[in-house]
Amino acid sequence: MDYTVVEMTVEELEDERVVFGGLAESVRELADASLRTTVPAEVVAEVQTEIERLTARLRKEQIPGAFGVSMSSQGTVRGHGNAVVGLRNPVAPPLKIEHSDEGRAWSSFRLGPLYEGPPGMVHGGVAALVLDQILGEAAAAGGSPGMTGTLQLRYVQGTPLGECSAEAWIDRVEGAKTFAKAELRRSDGETTVQAEGIFILPRWAREAMDEHHQRPTRFE
Amino acid sequence: MDYTVVEMTVEELEDERVVFGGLAESVRELADASLRTTVPAEVVAEVQTEIERLTARLRKEQIPGAFGVSMSSQGTVRGHGNAVVGLRNPVAPPLKIEHSDEGRAWSSFRLGPLYEGPPGMVHGGVAALVLDQILGEAAAAGGSPGMTGTLQLRYVQGTPLGECSAEAWIDRVEGAKTFAKAELRRSDGETTVQAEGIFILPRWAREAMDEHHQRPTRFE
Repeated sequence: MDYTVVEMTVEELEDERVVFGGLAESVRELADASLRTTVPAEVVAEVQTEIERLTARLRKEQIPGAFGVSMSSQGTVRGHGNAVVGLRNPVAPPLKIEHSDEGRAWSSFRLGPLYEGPPGMVHGGVAALVLDQILGEAAAAGGSPGMTGTLQLRYVQGTPLGECSAEAWIDRVEGAKTFAKAELRRSDGETTVQAEGIFILPRWAREAMDEHHQRPTRFE
Repeated sequence: MDYTVVEMTVEELEDERVVFGGLAESVRELADASLRTTVPAEVVAEVQTEIERLTARLRKEQIPGAFGVSMSSQGTVRGHGNAVVGLRNPVAPPLKIEHSDEGRAWSSFRLGPLYEGPPGMVHGGVAALVLDQILGEAAAAGGSPGMTGTLQLRYVQGTPLGECSAEAWIDRVEGAKTFAKAELRRSDGETTVQAEGIFILPRWAREAMDEHHQRPTRFE
């Protein structure tokens, strides 16, 4: 398991957001186009060759494994590689999640054709992916960060692709366990999926935080 | 909600697999490289400009919305846009899932840095995403396809990024509800996440199948 923990200044993190965040956004657009294109096979082959050339160019210098986390001197932990919120991760929509200190997290975002399950609808597993992240962020925002212990989802109705929102809140805390609830909503505000999760702070995370003399208020 | 239902011959589906599947695979590699690259900002800017040019080229001809499904004359339904198994979807790993008639589904696959949650580990929500898909495919393989009604996940331990496998099976069927169970396993075969789901066949799917005089044995 290779991953990186980098200590960065707030300025370096900002550069990373603009430069590498911009790159990821362009790859997201390319991914959407490659899913939906109907250009002739010859054009596809030419585009593919060019993509492979660009990939080789980016790979000339790269970190050896997964992205891991960047910790700033201000004590925030940024998961720029995270599959839901990672600015540098083209697989992530990415969600920009807002938080409040009492353990609430919310976000409005767009899930386009790349997140399809049933025709025209958000994949049930993508709903779970988004809700897992926002539940964990609500737990962390309330001062009790943790990894997912259990997750329960109830699919009330299908979620049409397009504009969506999600909200999560802490229901209660019992020792190292934080119980949080969340909802996914479609563009008109109707709830489509309800979720409940238990988040547990593992030992490695407690040790890493002790080592850095800090307790992150959230993973972002 | 825009999506496409295309009737294709088996030959057309095969062309699509090779040509557009190859394109998606090259975009997946580019996504991984863009997440992990440490090349200078000037190089990133040049690469980004070229990516935008390629995207415009692919967008010259494209379907209006989400990918939807392609139905072949042989009665299989292919979700090439699906967020987990879609050959044309760069967000999908993609999983190649095998099935047996008695309602079992299994797959070996790699979850690389693009699927990270905690440092070096598979995002808990990505585990849910994969398990939701394989549970649904087990239900369908056993003759009872459906959309996710409820999904329960228990995270036994973290799943290291890298080689993984998953297996799902039908526990029981009650009317339109199929109860299925699944496990995600790390490379040494140890179970990392346990899942249980209820899958329900919605009316629109029953009607679509009647219209095509067929009952798909699976979504693939």
